Amino acid sequence: MNYDQIFDQAIDRLHSEGRYRVFIDILRNKGAYPNARCFAGHNGPKPITVWCSNDYLAMGQHPKVIGAMEEALHDVGAGSGGTRNIGGNTHYHIQLEQELADLHDKESALLFTSGYVSNDATLSTLAKLLPGCIIFSDELNHASMIAGIRNSGCEKRVFRHNDVEHLEELLAAESPDVPKLIAFESVYSMDGDVAPIHAICDLAEKYNALTYLDEVHAVGMYGARGGGISERDDAAHRLNLIEGTLGKAFGVMGGYVAADKKIIDVIRSYAPGFIFTTSLSPVLVAGVLASVRHLKSCSEERDAQQASAARLKAMMREAGLPVMDSTTHIVPLMVGDPVKAKRISDILLAEYGAYVQPINFPTVPRGTERLRFTPGPAHTEEMMQELTNALVEVWDRLEIKLAA
Amino acid sequence: MNYDQIFDQAIDRLHSEGRYRVFIDILRNKGAYPNARCFAGHNGPKPITVWCSNDYLAMGQHPKVIGAMEEALHDVGAGSGGTRNIGGNTHYHIQLEQELADLHDKESALLFTSGYVSNDATLSTLAKLLPGCIIFSDELNHASMIAGIRNSGCEKRVFRHNDVEHLEELLAAESPDVPKLIAFESVYSMDGDVAPIHAICDLAEKYNALTYLDEVHAVGMYGARGGGISERDDAAHRLNLIEGTLGKAFGVMGGYVAADKKIIDVIRSYAPGFIFTTSLSPVLVAGVLASVRHLKSCSEERDAQQASAARLKAMMREAGLPVMDSTTHIVPLMVGDPVKAKRISDILLAEYGAYVQPINFPTVPRGTERLRFTPGPAHTEEMMQELTNALVEVWDRLEIKLAA
Ligand SMILES: Cc1ncc(COP(=O)(O)O)c(C=O)c1O
Ligand SMILES: Cc1ncc(COP(=O)(O)O)c(C=O)c1O
Repeated sequence: MNYDQIFDQAIDRLHSEGRYRVFIDILRNKGAYPNARCFAGHNGPKPITVWCSNDYLAMGQHPKVIGAMEEALHDVGAGSGGTRNIGGNTHYHIQLEQELADLHDKESALLFTSGYVSNDATLSTLAKLLPGCIIFSDELNHASMIAGIRNSGCEKRVFRHNDVEHLEELLAAESPDVPKLIAFESVYSMDGDVAPIHAICDLAEKYNALTYLDEVHAVGMYGARGGGISERDDAAHRLNLIEGTLGKAFGVMGGYVAADKKIIDVIRSYAPGFIFTTSLSPVLVAGVLASVRHLKSCSEERDAQQASAARLKAMMREAGLPVMDSTTHIVPLMVGDPVKAKRISDILLAEYGAYVQPINFPTVPRGTERLRFTPGPAHTEEMMQELTNALVEVWDRLEIKLAA
Repeated sequence: MNYDQIFDQAIDRLHSEGRYRVFIDILRNKGAYPNARCFAGHNGPKPITVWCSNDYLAMGQHPKVIGAMEEALHDVGAGSGGTRNIGGNTHYHIQLEQELADLHDKESALLFTSGYVSNDATLSTLAKLLPGCIIFSDELNHASMIAGIRNSGCEKRVFRHNDVEHLEELLAAESPDVPKLIAFESVYSMDGDVAPIHAICDLAEKYNALTYLDEVHAVGMYGARGGGISERDDAAHRLNLIEGTLGKAFGVMGGYVAADKKIIDVIRSYAPGFIFTTSLSPVLVAGVLASVRHLKSCSEERDAQQASAARLKAMMREAGLPVMDSTTHIVPLMVGDPVKAKRISDILLAEYGAYVQPINFPTVPRGTERLRFTPGPAHTEEMMQELTNALVEVWDRLEIKLAA
């Protein structure tokens, strides 16, 4: 038994496939985001523009969010000091859960330390409680849902991405007496496409299945109050569970599920990933409260972000760059090769001060490696023009074919 | 298939066993902790004293921690905006990982969103990478380690709590060619006893096993620099992985593992629970940095906390209360019945303004239900005297036997 050798081989595999990851060392400039400082390989920090943040609406620097966090920091201190059951249940947590339940028109909501944990803990707990449960999972579901499904120990049927006919085939093949759960996302964040929520809910009704929707890339972003695609499409009432993150459009950190009272009580009472962990810092919770409340009552950031995304897509398309078909705020540019994707990203950072991370396997399937841009309300027309020009130059330099 | 009925039954089981949990709604008073406000069932907040926080050293209100968080909040904003690989790797994260590696005399460290996630993600990933790995797990290991072990899909052998002979029996029964991992804790937080680290490391050497130590209740608390029991006992160099939380003695939120560079690189590269989640808010990371640095260079809080715990144990023992044998800072009082434990806790809160949560199954085995006190440097002699008097009165009222 040589442990070192096994670990070496594991790392070598990544290098040889061109997908060993190097993290870029940055600090954002609050109030001036998307401007940031990059520390890697330079003498002192170098100014950059961030193009790949999931703080889509720049709420992470919104004065209301910063102010609320500062107040909580001075009122109650840094951490919660305990699990939700033992000392870590603060008034902020309770208020935020009410606010999130209301956002999705549900009776209750439950906070987790992250969106990842909310998916993992909820799916694994729920399915374990339903004897013989079969989970129907979209093939592009996020790693955290896949983890929850695997950890539930249940049987799983994978349906082709957004393919309602395939889903029906799979549902129809099972006995009506078996508990069923359909797990899917609203906005698929690496492609930018959207699930047919109503059609999936129709099937859920027909085959008596529970529905679980990950709205991580949609909460705060869609719907009149930021309730996600399920609000925009008026489908929230048809979904049993809606899951979201507090770390993307809401700009802070954490995750949650919203559902009826009974389901939330069950998860609260049975999920180890909820029970046995220090609760979210009240400082974060206070920030999210301000963020959710703001985005419920104001569409300014949402609208500006959509306009930015549309503008950047148009510019890139005009320049002949291979923008992928995205019906949402996400702007993916297909490269199709992990080494080239990394090389483009390196050149953009080193020569143009533009930071966009390459997206490689296992985040996307091999052969579909890409760059993924997330312009926000604060990315100016000029920044977009510079970026597009830089991309055309690099595409040319590396002799990658343009789309036209 | 009636989903509602199944969920109802799940909740009913908890009620009938007397372990349905009701969260107490509190807000701590920063700067005046252990004083807090309780919101439950009152008109407006009522002042209470917190006796069950895991912010053992009150670092959650330390001016250095608060100051660092405020600075980060104004410098970079609320959240990190991305995963460590995509936009969420800040200078703070890198600095804290270096600081934590140094704390445990290891080459590297890796941050997670919580101690729970660090155990779950690391154990499941590590064991999956070692073909045929068998994990040897102390029977009292925390739920998060149990989750990681289960999620690894490996075989597991459970050894009796802190029983080195039993562990050796189990190790000797397996082939020398099979990868082995011993997972255990230093301070067991519900009993307050300590693992025989050196004896376990002796066995690990003899049987060529990797060692994984959870120091969640010991980091910041033991050792000249707060490196935990492994520092105090001069055993850090004998352990392959040391895991800790940032949410207890360090007073904020998050988790980590420290190990040699290669192991950290493997976990960083392969653990879905690390890769696919928004990184810790830089505000939290900045706070922890200040906290770790302070506790590395100053033993004042540690010493005061130990003195408080010794004082409270002595008082309770003197009063004839059934304090359990604890060799650490934890003060558990045995009740042995879930309903009585809850009742004592309710009376203490309602009549005496003393907040201590009952500890019931599944956190501890059935029949060993208890109250668990964590006096800190800020709990005064007077508070302890009041608490002890209250306990004696309640013990008498409920006709529970005293120890003497
Ligand atoms: C679809 C999806 N679900 C869940 C998550 C996890 O959320 P969080 O970052 O809050 O852990 C992510 C990304 O991180 C995601 O893309
Ligand atoms: C022994 C042990 N390990 C791990 C954890 C999890 O740490 P965290 O609260 O940071 O998730 C806890 C308690 O919460 C614990 O008691």
